[in-house]
Amino acid sequence: MTNAITRLFNITYPLVQAGMVWTSGWKLASAVSNAGGLGMIGSGSMYPNVLREHIIKCKAATNKPFAVNIPLMYPDIEKHIEIIIQEGVKIVFTSAGNPSSYTSILKEKGITVAHVVSSSKFALKAESSGCDAVVAEGFEAGGHNGREETTTMVLVPAVVEAVKIPVIAAGGIATGRQMLSAMVLGANGVQIGTRFAATEEASCHRGFKQMIVDSREGDTLLSLKKLVPVRLLKNNFFIKVREAELRGASESELTEILGRARAKKGMFEGDLDEGELEIGQVSALVKDVRPAASVVEEIMREFAVALENPLFDTPKTII
Amino acid sequence: MTNAITRLFNITYPLVQAGMVWTSGWKLASAVSNAGGLGMIGSGSMYPNVLREHIIKCKAATNKPFAVNIPLMYPDIEKHIEIIIQEGVKIVFTSAGNPSSYTSILKEKGITVAHVVSSSKFALKAESSGCDAVVAEGFEAGGHNGREETTTMVLVPAVVEAVKIPVIAAGGIATGRQMLSAMVLGANGVQIGTRFAATEEASCHRGFKQMIVDSREGDTLLSLKKLVPVRLLKNNFFIKVREAELRGASESELTEILGRARAKKGMFEGDLDEGELEIGQVSALVKDVRPAASVVEEIMREFAVALENPLFDTPKTII
Repeated sequence: MTNAITRLFNITYPLVQAGMVWTSGWKLASAVSNAGGLGMIGSGSMYPNVLREHIIKCKAATNKPFAVNIPLMYPDIEKHIEIIIQEGVKIVFTSAGNPSSYTSILKEKGITVAHVVSSSKFALKAESSGCDAVVAEGFEAGGHNGREETTTMVLVPAVVEAVKIPVIAAGGIATGRQMLSAMVLGANGVQIGTRFAATEEASCHRGFKQMIVDSREGDTLLSLKKLVPVRLLKNNFFIKVREAELRGASESELTEILGRARAKKGMFEGDLDEGELEIGQVSALVKDVRPAASVVEEIMREFAVALENPLFDTPKTII
Repeated sequence: MTNAITRLFNITYPLVQAGMVWTSGWKLASAVSNAGGLGMIGSGSMYPNVLREHIIKCKAATNKPFAVNIPLMYPDIEKHIEIIIQEGVKIVFTSAGNPSSYTSILKEKGITVAHVVSSSKFALKAESSGCDAVVAEGFEAGGHNGREETTTMVLVPAVVEAVKIPVIAAGGIATGRQMLSAMVLGANGVQIGTRFAATEEASCHRGFKQMIVDSREGDTLLSLKKLVPVRLLKNNFFIKVREAELRGASESELTEILGRARAKKGMFEGDLDEGELEIGQVSALVKDVRPAASVVEEIMREFAVALENPLFDTPKTII
């Protein structure tokens, strides 16, 4: 299939693998790109030299387009941008910050830029900053999230109505039916994180992958709203945060509880009790760890079936 | 169209108007039923004699099926059940409580019973209690809500997978595209509240209807989580609740701030500053107050168009 998103990124399917800290390195990104989606290196947990290494390895592992995700609040962002330009990366997804700062610099170098937003207000800002597309990411998504808590079902139509550039839906999407559901809302493609964290190529810890598989509805909650809201998988660390929040703990107390390098501890080193585990609500629907290519294939097979028969129990064209 | 839900309720469209306190009396319910959906009287804000009056008037105003919604935590529930049986109501939607208590009593009288749930665990409970259908209501919905905060995009597939009885999706649905989107996830129909609150026949205050029309993304937030979580439209009362919650206010303090009859004050009497205003996130997409029949017609027209062309920008059958 071709549409605004497949053409923009020159990919086979309008399916983007989200950049995820400690999870999406060159192995996952190249596997997804080779399978016809858009793979993405998540630079938020990488030192500049590590990012460069991942880009070089990704270029060697695929001749298909891939992207790099840059959280705009990353402290070493200037170096990341420099490396991305030096290494000839063609697609960048920015997130968690103001797109007006870096979009024009990237665009001048011929880089295609998409920006992740949690509201149509931010989507309009991204559009006027020159972004080529926006990712409309709902409340149910993993990791850092917006303060307005607008869900994918409401956010996607709002963003589609607000902007003229293509819209990629994110948050709560792990299956082909969910992909079609999001595109029915007007999105031109989807960005999927959680489902790809539970793949063999994901660089997060094996124990974390198993926790994703084992997790059920209600096992994640948007937390740390007084700092930057982040959707956490429930564990001992979560319980500590929760207790503090319920008694009205201050920003500084929460910052202290969070401490440093806790995401690495949890997602990369596999301390499943005391680490910070970021994942989306849809982890409840993820049932196995498998190769990324097989995830892409299954989603697109299910998407095709759903497109042929959008309603489960009803023959079409009966209205 | 016919499917499991149109057959179950003997209605034209698989579109249910949600029971809403101070908002859905006989006028709204009969208007929606006459337009081919399933109208519903919301009994949660009615004294027993008021409920009886609404049922009698609804029967006079339509010969189509309509339903009554009963929150199972309502103090006078026994009387409500008695009236429903006496007046020959054929369809009941229960919510906010344990379905095992009353489902069999209603079923014995030949009443069709649906129960509103916020998780697949509760959906299984409803199924095993003998309910004929479940409403899977996501986090984005207005009014009282589940503690797990699972959104429509994630909840609906989870519930569809868990139960064999038909599933009605609710939360974040106000347009025909959103209706199709929810049904692509496996729902057999949808329940729509917010959009019907902004109709001429809704019994809520005109000023509240205008606030729904004027509201934008981020103008509602799930609140009072230490009591029963409820999605509130932001106003002075909301700000007081919010301040208290951020400093960790106790249950009893929040109960005191809430006080008594605050929903009536806001939604019915039109005290838009100090009243409790319950509405869904999708109010951001509602742009006018109009007759309920025209809402049903527009949604079903948009649904039909969307079904013919599920993807906005892409011709079908291209995979």
